[in-house]
Amino acid sequence: MTRPDERSDPQSEPSTTTPDPGARMATEIAEQPAVLQRLLDHAEPIEAIGARIRAFAPRFVLLGARGTSDHAALYAKYLTEIELGLPAGLASPSTATVYGARPDLHGGLALAVSQSGGSSDLIDWLTAARAGGALTVAVTNTPDSPLARAAELAVDIQAGPERAVAATKTYTAQLLALHLLLVGRAGTEALPAAAERTLARDGATAAGRYRYAERVIVTGRGYSYPTAREAALKLMETNYVSAQAFSAADLLHGPLAMIDSGVPVLAVVPPGAAGAALAEPLHRLAEAGADVLRIGDVPGADLPVVADGVPDRLRPVLEILPLQQLARQVAVDRGLDPDRPRGLAKVTSTW
Amino acid sequence: MTRPDERSDPQSEPSTTTPDPGARMATEIAEQPAVLQRLLDHAEPIEAIGARIRAFAPRFVLLGARGTSDHAALYAKYLTEIELGLPAGLASPSTATVYGARPDLHGGLALAVSQSGGSSDLIDWLTAARAGGALTVAVTNTPDSPLARAAELAVDIQAGPERAVAATKTYTAQLLALHLLLVGRAGTEALPAAAERTLARDGATAAGRYRYAERVIVTGRGYSYPTAREAALKLMETNYVSAQAFSAADLLHGPLAMIDSGVPVLAVVPPGAAGAALAEPLHRLAEAGADVLRIGDVPGADLPVVADGVPDRLRPVLEILPLQQLARQVAVDRGLDPDRPRGLAKVTSTW
Repeated sequence: MTRPDERSDPQSEPSTTTPDPGARMATEIAEQPAVLQRLLDHAEPIEAIGARIRAFAPRFVLLGARGTSDHAALYAKYLTEIELGLPAGLASPSTATVYGARPDLHGGLALAVSQSGGSSDLIDWLTAARAGGALTVAVTNTPDSPLARAAELAVDIQAGPERAVAATKTYTAQLLALHLLLVGRAGTEALPAAAERTLARDGATAAGRYRYAERVIVTGRGYSYPTAREAALKLMETNYVSAQAFSAADLLHGPLAMIDSGVPVLAVVPPGAAGAALAEPLHRLAEAGADVLRIGDVPGADLPVVADGVPDRLRPVLEILPLQQLARQVAVDRGLDPDRPRGLAKVTSTW
Repeated sequence: MTRPDERSDPQSEPSTTTPDPGARMATEIAEQPAVLQRLLDHAEPIEAIGARIRAFAPRFVLLGARGTSDHAALYAKYLTEIELGLPAGLASPSTATVYGARPDLHGGLALAVSQSGGSSDLIDWLTAARAGGALTVAVTNTPDSPLARAAELAVDIQAGPERAVAATKTYTAQLLALHLLLVGRAGTEALPAAAERTLARDGATAAGRYRYAERVIVTGRGYSYPTAREAALKLMETNYVSAQAFSAADLLHGPLAMIDSGVPVLAVVPPGAAGAALAEPLHRLAEAGADVLRIGDVPGADLPVVADGVPDRLRPVLEILPLQQLARQVAVDRGLDPDRPRGLAKVTSTW
């Protein structure tokens, strides 16, 4: 496993040369088992903040994030509702930043998730939440960032610098950090090894099938829905395809109409009841003639996930891995550089 | 204006004949000013439920919905945060229906929105919310539906039977009903006439430009974001295109990479601060070579909205109108029948 801190300073390389498209993304994908292990080895500060949250005993949880981090926040929403039995909602930062809303948030927990900690709308949202009486926590990869400083409590996901524009290791580190924060360490031990074994199965092997796809649908249910959302974003930002994620339930409320044999479907199939709830939507997709690729720790999966005893609620950390490999390989096959998608910067300012 | 109750019974026509593709959708689009007026004329029961909600003084609001109704719920989320100063979140029904989560919702308002009131996952979610101590309200077009019966309080949007699969009049009636419920009657008077004038400007005139588009991006910000989401769903279900909606902020976090001159953008431009916040994203889109169509009550709009003094927070009722007309016309031009999209039923069961 590559140690995140052994890599060179991103500033030392000229950004205009592209000797090896997708090399950075490949390195960062491969680093994930080590990043997860490192986070587990240094989990005490996060668990201490988790204890502070439990002592505060929030009545509800609000989550603020953008882009990839928004999918980690969605994962935290499921954890909050299912594991903590608390209502949770994804914030619409514009209600604070554009309309000046200042809700009364006493008794609430406001959790902002951001790789860079630099998005000004999130900073403004968290600042407004703090003024509104919420306990504020920032989860970033940049402990000295403005977002971390704006929060009462700050979690460092310790993923090391991420140089590819498409986030990979910071996403899985966010997921694990949020689990450590909200649920704790239970069930996390097997995660690094399971990630290593899942990566070894190599999702890139399915890339040829999507070489010329211009539209892709990704679906999931429950804990696998954030994975579907994140996979769609990876495909969009690295391959410039129209990749759309729908919960399997929402798919039947309209979007199903656009699916035929020309629109491939990636189905992230979770274990247990959520997987069973996917059966009928997958049947409807088959009726519509869709080409469905199944990802997960389920019999007959096209892209297998090796779960090795990792509990259902932590599977999202594993399920995204073959999809990261797939998105990267399709981009490279198309002659694109997933490390440097057109039009994007690593840190995005929104307001 | 057509009176909703003057139309014939949908059961009386065989569903296999299609004498006039899109005729039902056209009728229901045209009915909207009358539907809005009717709802205003019979708003007392909704205002009475609004008074019950204010007396309950909720600490937070949870919204449950699917498909088009989910976009009305998103609108209600903005109203709640901005106008009521309360935290709000969109529910993930699967946490209750698949994972059995039973959150403590004492002091909360749980609001389910559904045209048919027949989706079993929403019924289960609202039932669980009621058991968890929330005040439960159902907003449906079917007052004797299981969802309405499962709720403590039920709002009837009084839109009359909707026969096209693509929802139009029930969407705008949901928006107005939610405004009446949460904010009240203020500012609503001018709405029916403004809707009539906006429809007369006819969004269908822009249809030729999208005759062969296979991918479309719709963007908005703040109150116009639900409109972007709903417009994308209309395009997906009637035209089978990959239509994706992004808040203008999220667009810059990845999806921007996939936009070039081959992917048209529909930008719903709200007035005031939210519109100003769109300026930079629209500039970035122009740099990327995007073909941008602007919808709204703003100078130089390609699809103008006639607001006639309707306040910002009610503009979503108007902004969707030209986009409904556009989606319908593109479908008819393509030889499709937007009244009966392939693979879809009017009432969708999810679980």
